[in-house]
Amino acid sequence: MKILVSNDDGVHAPGIRALSEALATLAEVVTVAPDRNCSGASNSLTLTNPLRVQTIDNGYLSVNGTPTDCVHLAIRELMDGEPDLVVSGINAGANLGDDTLYSGTVAAAMEGRHLGLPTIAVSLVGRELRHYATAARFTLKLVRHLKMTPLPSNQILNINVPDLPEEAIQGVRVTRLGARHKAEGMIRTQDPAGRDIYWLGPPGQQQDAGPGTDFDAVANGFISITPLTVDLTAHDQLEGLSRWMDGVS
Amino acid sequence: MKILVSNDDGVHAPGIRALSEALATLAEVVTVAPDRNCSGASNSLTLTNPLRVQTIDNGYLSVNGTPTDCVHLAIRELMDGEPDLVVSGINAGANLGDDTLYSGTVAAAMEGRHLGLPTIAVSLVGRELRHYATAARFTLKLVRHLKMTPLPSNQILNINVPDLPEEAIQGVRVTRLGARHKAEGMIRTQDPAGRDIYWLGPPGQQQDAGPGTDFDAVANGFISITPLTVDLTAHDQLEGLSRWMDGVS
Amino acid sequence: MKILVSNDDGVHAPGIRALSEALATLAEVVTVAPDRNCSGASNSLTLTNPLRVQTIDNGYLSVNGTPTDCVHLAIRELMDGEPDLVVSGINAGANLGDDTLYSGTVAAAMEGRHLGLPTIAVSLVGRELRHYATAARFTLKLVRHLKMTPLPSNQILNINVPDLPEEAIQGVRVTRLGARHKAEGMIRTQDPAGRDIYWLGPPGQQQDAGPGTDFDAVANGFISITPLTVDLTAHDQLEGLSRWMDGVS
Amino acid sequence: MKILVSNDDGVHAPGIRALSEALATLAEVVTVAPDRNCSGASNSLTLTNPLRVQTIDNGYLSVNGTPTDCVHLAIRELMDGEPDLVVSGINAGANLGDDTLYSGTVAAAMEGRHLGLPTIAVSLVGRELRHYATAARFTLKLVRHLKMTPLPSNQILNINVPDLPEEAIQGVRVTRLGARHKAEGMIRTQDPAGRDIYWLGPPGQQQDAGPGTDFDAVANGFISITPLTVDLTAHDQLEGLSRWMDGVS
Repeated sequence: MKILVSNDDGVHAPGIRALSEALATLAEVVTVAPDRNCSGASNSLTLTNPLRVQTIDNGYLSVNGTPTDCVHLAIRELMDGEPDLVVSGINAGANLGDDTLYSGTVAAAMEGRHLGLPTIAVSLVGRELRHYATAARFTLKLVRHLKMTPLPSNQILNINVPDLPEEAIQGVRVTRLGARHKAEGMIRTQDPAGRDIYWLGPPGQQQDAGPGTDFDAVANGFISITPLTVDLTAHDQLEGLSRWMDGVS
Repeated sequence: MKILVSNDDGVHAPGIRALSEALATLAEVVTVAPDRNCSGASNSLTLTNPLRVQTIDNGYLSVNGTPTDCVHLAIRELMDGEPDLVVSGINAGANLGDDTLYSGTVAAAMEGRHLGLPTIAVSLVGRELRHYATAARFTLKLVRHLKMTPLPSNQILNINVPDLPEEAIQGVRVTRLGARHKAEGMIRTQDPAGRDIYWLGPPGQQQDAGPGTDFDAVANGFISITPLTVDLTAHDQLEGLSRWMDGVS
Repeated sequence: MKILVSNDDGVHAPGIRALSEALATLAEVVTVAPDRNCSGASNSLTLTNPLRVQTIDNGYLSVNGTPTDCVHLAIRELMDGEPDLVVSGINAGANLGDDTLYSGTVAAAMEGRHLGLPTIAVSLVGRELRHYATAARFTLKLVRHLKMTPLPSNQILNINVPDLPEEAIQGVRVTRLGARHKAEGMIRTQDPAGRDIYWLGPPGQQQDAGPGTDFDAVANGFISITPLTVDLTAHDQLEGLSRWMDGVS
Repeated sequence: MKILVSNDDGVHAPGIRALSEALATLAEVVTVAPDRNCSGASNSLTLTNPLRVQTIDNGYLSVNGTPTDCVHLAIRELMDGEPDLVVSGINAGANLGDDTLYSGTVAAAMEGRHLGLPTIAVSLVGRELRHYATAARFTLKLVRHLKMTPLPSNQILNINVPDLPEEAIQGVRVTRLGARHKAEGMIRTQDPAGRDIYWLGPPGQQQDAGPGTDFDAVANGFISITPLTVDLTAHDQLEGLSRWMDGVS
């Protein structure tokens, strides 16, 4: 089995090392990641500039692009034959609810659809992160199971692991994404020259975070797994919109 | 009515001017957009640097950030009271099928969810674009209808208009997003110093482009409207995944 | 006569318009400048990415590069025949003393050496800038004189004009660059997530700012003109260093 | 003795490691460098965004800024007491003649003026670089000599070492900077979408490269040392310019 590992925290982040090393016990691993932190990159692509690749000391490949660029470039050009699987992470921080929309970690996994196996995004949920090993070991177990027991290959699994020692994990839950209220205001401050600058403020409060959601699972010490789709069509709105459009002349 | 107009081609692009001017005949319009071309930005956010705002000659606001940044900043800080509606575009080029995943134009519209009215992304489909007026006038008609006849406010409408004179448009179709095969290889070439560089190659062939899709509507001269969702959960896979997870130990 | 105008504040800045319009009364003017503010760019070059050019509404050319890139590209590729002269500015703010080392405005002028006439960098000195016209008109007068009365073509003239109405200007002084004490500390603060960030602090106090310096001229209401060189060799240290090196074994 | 080491090739480059390790045998070394390759950065400064610092595996500090930013930040904020000396390099490639104007390596050394000892920029001249050790060992010897035998503290030494084994080096020469003819044209090509893009072309031919220049020393297998100045005033033109200005009315 051949696995492509990527992330959005950059090729030098601790999480990608923990993940690459764990998976290397099971498969041939190629690690290709951005040359700097790309948190918040979503599915962004580098369109106007070319990409360049550099091999760093530990053999990982460093790319001057986004997580999506990295996975795309690795599959199409850098790897010798397509990988069976893309695993992205371990992200330093949660990718839960509608925040997944902005996640470069999740985007890297999405870019691996069309491959032989489902793709996986893994994030470690907490502030002072200590337990990358918990997330790495669970991912390893999951990949081993995937190898034995098929799942549809176009699936994208979004995994969030509480930052706890392995024995403190309460179990695993399959969840749907929760949702937040709209974000609170931005933070306006001034640079030293006295000009206004604006920083992204904290995310909104959780709005849909009850049983069944990823927010709820993680808050209770469970590992959360959510199957994701890349189809943005709101299928349940097609009919209503069609009727409404009849009124436009 | 108050409308926020944004885009991903940048505040100086012709499409945002055509759109802003058309909508100004109907409502109070505030235009806030990136200071340079952000095509391919997806829902990316600026996390490590602060944002700055500048008013340009025509009164539009220019922001050193992504389309998502612009809409977020405008709603939370720059506008005097929330807008009723966000309209993003007119994008120079299509946003169809799974390409919408990478679109900054669509991302700007998504960022306006939680507002009073559905949000709208508008793109002009063609190569040598000449008919921004067609797209601008259709959008104006749609917004006028929205004002009169309610639609659920959390909707996101993705509109693609063929680059044709108004009288050559065949009509309007409500569609689902089509899908492409995986992209073809990247383009490897060398910079003048002889080092390898890689460019994103052309998108894959259309795979799901039959009747009912946005690809099909536009190819036949129709304006395509697709309702989008920000919920990335693959709801139809929840049950199968739960059963499968029982096997992981 | 053909003049290339550039700057470091970006193609949309008010200073470059004032300058281009003034010089157009005397010569054929081509304006090529960065697509965004590049203050502090010094002589930096874009090495890893290619440059792109776009013509904006008023006919100026916008380049996704540094001031040095713009001048180099304009002379070598964009202009139909070499210009006789490069004029850079009008910069919004002073370029005096050792701060010239960091100036993109001065760098753009430097890049025009090797041309038929001396090159010129023009800056307007003040906070709330109102008198671009004073600087534009003086530059026009100077260029007219250059056209009539030769000066060695490899000269680079660094001009700083006090932000005053023309009649309040005390005269013109040929000066040497002054010097500052080393800069004061940087400004350490925290981003909203509580992480340390650092901003460039205010420049150091003036150390060499007596009669004969550019600092002194401007402080007294005079326009300052300093001839600059691109030869960074410290010629007066060659001999002492040679002797000292004899001791290295 | 306390030494600050920086560069423009980035904190992960081989040259900065060779340099830091060599100097650590003699002094306390703190290494602070850009988080990515900044070749061509010249003396550019980061004015609109804040800087951030990260400690990487080997203890070096990585900064999201230019070489000038790194040295400024290190001296003013990061180091516990000012260093006695800044050494910048070992750059992968030459910094000779008027190319020094664009060099981030040289700029980092310049930023260390005002310190207790002269500052040093070191570059390795060649294509397939193999002999960082030659440059590292020579620098070590020079610093040891500086420690014993004073030189004026505001000096900036620009050192270029041929990429040869130590025993093949012909000696050391104190030189002045040579000069090139103006650069040849840029290289125009097209991106995969068929749009024009421009790359910086090769530097111009050597024009002033005879005996006494840095070009000549290195071409003959010698290590070249040039004392640099940050005073850009063309002192020898002051008088002529004054006379000429009398004609401007």
